[in-house]
Amino acid sequence: MTGLLPEGFHDRLPPAADSAARLETRALGVARLFGYEQVDPPLAEFADALGSRLKAGRMHDAVRFIDPVSQRTLAIRPDLTAQIGRIAATRMGHHPRPVRLSYAGQVLKLTGSALHPERSMRQIGCELIGLDTVAAATEIVRVAIEALQAAGVTGLSIDFTLPDLVETLAGDSLAPDTLAALRDRLDAKDAGGVAAIDSHYLPLIEAAGPFDAAMARLRAFDAGKALASRLDGLAEIAASIDGQAALTLDPTERHGFEYQSWLGFSIFAQGVRSEIGRGGTYAVLHEAGQEERAVGFSLFADPILDAGLGATERTRLFLPFGTPAETGAALRAQGWVTVAALEGDDTPQAQLCSHVLREGVPTAL
Amino acid sequence: MTGLLPEGFHDRLPPAADSAARLETRALGVARLFGYEQVDPPLAEFADALGSRLKAGRMHDAVRFIDPVSQRTLAIRPDLTAQIGRIAATRMGHHPRPVRLSYAGQVLKLTGSALHPERSMRQIGCELIGLDTVAAATEIVRVAIEALQAAGVTGLSIDFTLPDLVETLAGDSLAPDTLAALRDRLDAKDAGGVAAIDSHYLPLIEAAGPFDAAMARLRAFDAGKALASRLDGLAEIAASIDGQAALTLDPTERHGFEYQSWLGFSIFAQGVRSEIGRGGTYAVLHEAGQEERAVGFSLFADPILDAGLGATERTRLFLPFGTPAETGAALRAQGWVTVAALEGDDTPQAQLCSHVLREGVPTAL
Repeated sequence: MTGLLPEGFHDRLPPAADSAARLETRALGVARLFGYEQVDPPLAEFADALGSRLKAGRMHDAVRFIDPVSQRTLAIRPDLTAQIGRIAATRMGHHPRPVRLSYAGQVLKLTGSALHPERSMRQIGCELIGLDTVAAATEIVRVAIEALQAAGVTGLSIDFTLPDLVETLAGDSLAPDTLAALRDRLDAKDAGGVAAIDSHYLPLIEAAGPFDAAMARLRAFDAGKALASRLDGLAEIAASIDGQAALTLDPTERHGFEYQSWLGFSIFAQGVRSEIGRGGTYAVLHEAGQEERAVGFSLFADPILDAGLGATERTRLFLPFGTPAETGAALRAQGWVTVAALEGDDTPQAQLCSHVLREGVPTAL
Repeated sequence: MTGLLPEGFHDRLPPAADSAARLETRALGVARLFGYEQVDPPLAEFADALGSRLKAGRMHDAVRFIDPVSQRTLAIRPDLTAQIGRIAATRMGHHPRPVRLSYAGQVLKLTGSALHPERSMRQIGCELIGLDTVAAATEIVRVAIEALQAAGVTGLSIDFTLPDLVETLAGDSLAPDTLAALRDRLDAKDAGGVAAIDSHYLPLIEAAGPFDAAMARLRAFDAGKALASRLDGLAEIAASIDGQAALTLDPTERHGFEYQSWLGFSIFAQGVRSEIGRGGTYAVLHEAGQEERAVGFSLFADPILDAGLGATERTRLFLPFGTPAETGAALRAQGWVTVAALEGDDTPQAQLCSHVLREGVPTAL
């Protein structure tokens, strides 16, 4: 009978829950205008099927239970994108490409991390399946920015990365083990460690920071033009953003982008400590084992709301006891939120009202 | 790697998932205008705490798992109202009454029934906590009707019941066992069984049907006026509905209303086979054991959507490859859903578009 919740779980109360719903409706409204239609997969599905589409290790995050109906193990989704991939590859497998899908839903994690203790969260996102070209990535980044702007988030910045940069540069010149070690050390910005493998790659550590300067350093480094198409693509995406977000580039950032192909990005906002979204190019697995190119993003509503962004003022009009029903209806039709006194002793203060109806006129308190 | 889902789970695809989101936004939008603010409890909480607020037996419906953090059992909610009650009684316990709360979220059931095999559903609703008067119930019924109307649901009918009718009539005249048996037989419309206990209650079986006729029969039956205040209240609620829904009365219907006090109602819509909502008066449990009066309703979006209600036409404007970004932005600002070709060979047909941009003008296909 206590009100305590387990660690990593919390209630969202008024007015924060209203802000959350508004944020989601606005973000998905922008996606809709770009042709992204919603899909809504169920909270749980067969654990083995879900696991085959989750990133390695993510299945440990999933709450699993035995289904009394099928006697098989089901898992609650710890992430929604795996389910979107499943839908695109199976039930919408014969839909012409590209397919544009959006989604918003609850995800549940068995454990949180020290940095992110939350275990019950909402994930909102868009996936464009069938293309991972510059044009496709440009559209996805544009939708992400406009979705956040519509939700009232300002001071956006986007940090780009090139997840397959090291593989592309190294080609066959490094053994797989050495390549993996090099990637880890570059990701950790471990200059000594990188130099111990091949000091040729040292300048990549320096090529991180504000977008234009980082790009110039990367271009200078890329004498062999192995990166030229990637850098040209990145430049085109950056140009399309046109000042709507501050841009940075961290070309060797790999953490969290292990499954992304040529492009990855993280989204931040002024006043929010943690990442509020991320995205990039990736592959959707089909039944016969083929892979299909795709690009998408996910937004994390919780850090945005926890930072107080997207909040609006409460305007509530108190209708004194006995106000006729038609009067309330007429005021709601004008857009007023009406709170009717249901007893003679109710007050606008108790009902957190900003206005009261006095002689038929909404009057500010 | 298969696309199969467990029994009772399904994906909602385009355009049905968009309809679902729109239904929810519109229903909650109406609730908001009546002063109901959203709360958003987490998907899971401590099983014992949740169980203490669920109706008896409902805990068997809940997926449970051991929390590796607390080493305690957590449960995924099979119903949202228990959590709303918890919030009202604990975190919002000191908020002045009445408290008006709305909610929308996923619920998960371990097993379905033959009649309702679905196990992953959305529940939308409103609760008014602190009052269960006629004025409070009138408001709740009004919000439910307007929420469904805003969501595009037509041909509404409401079936009222008086859950504590038999107890009220019998007073102390029947032993608890006999009372329970009488209730069951009345609920089952078992005339022989009722007569075997006390033929005095037989007319109650006949007092079910269209509202006015059923009320007249109940009034005639209630010579001792034990039901007078209930019937007067019900008449007042019915009058407030003012033709917005067809009304019926089934005064001895108990199934599913075991925890309701003086009033219960089920909502139906033309063209939808199963119930689309239900509500009534009930008690919220507080920590010290006191009970607080409340009234509320829940809507079930799935049967409404499965019946095809709330669907709208898809208007999608194809932007040929190379259409400038500003042109797309201007069209979206006018409200068009734009689908940009990202390759030269994309077509409006492949992208399920109703319109195509020809020489700058949206043209119907």
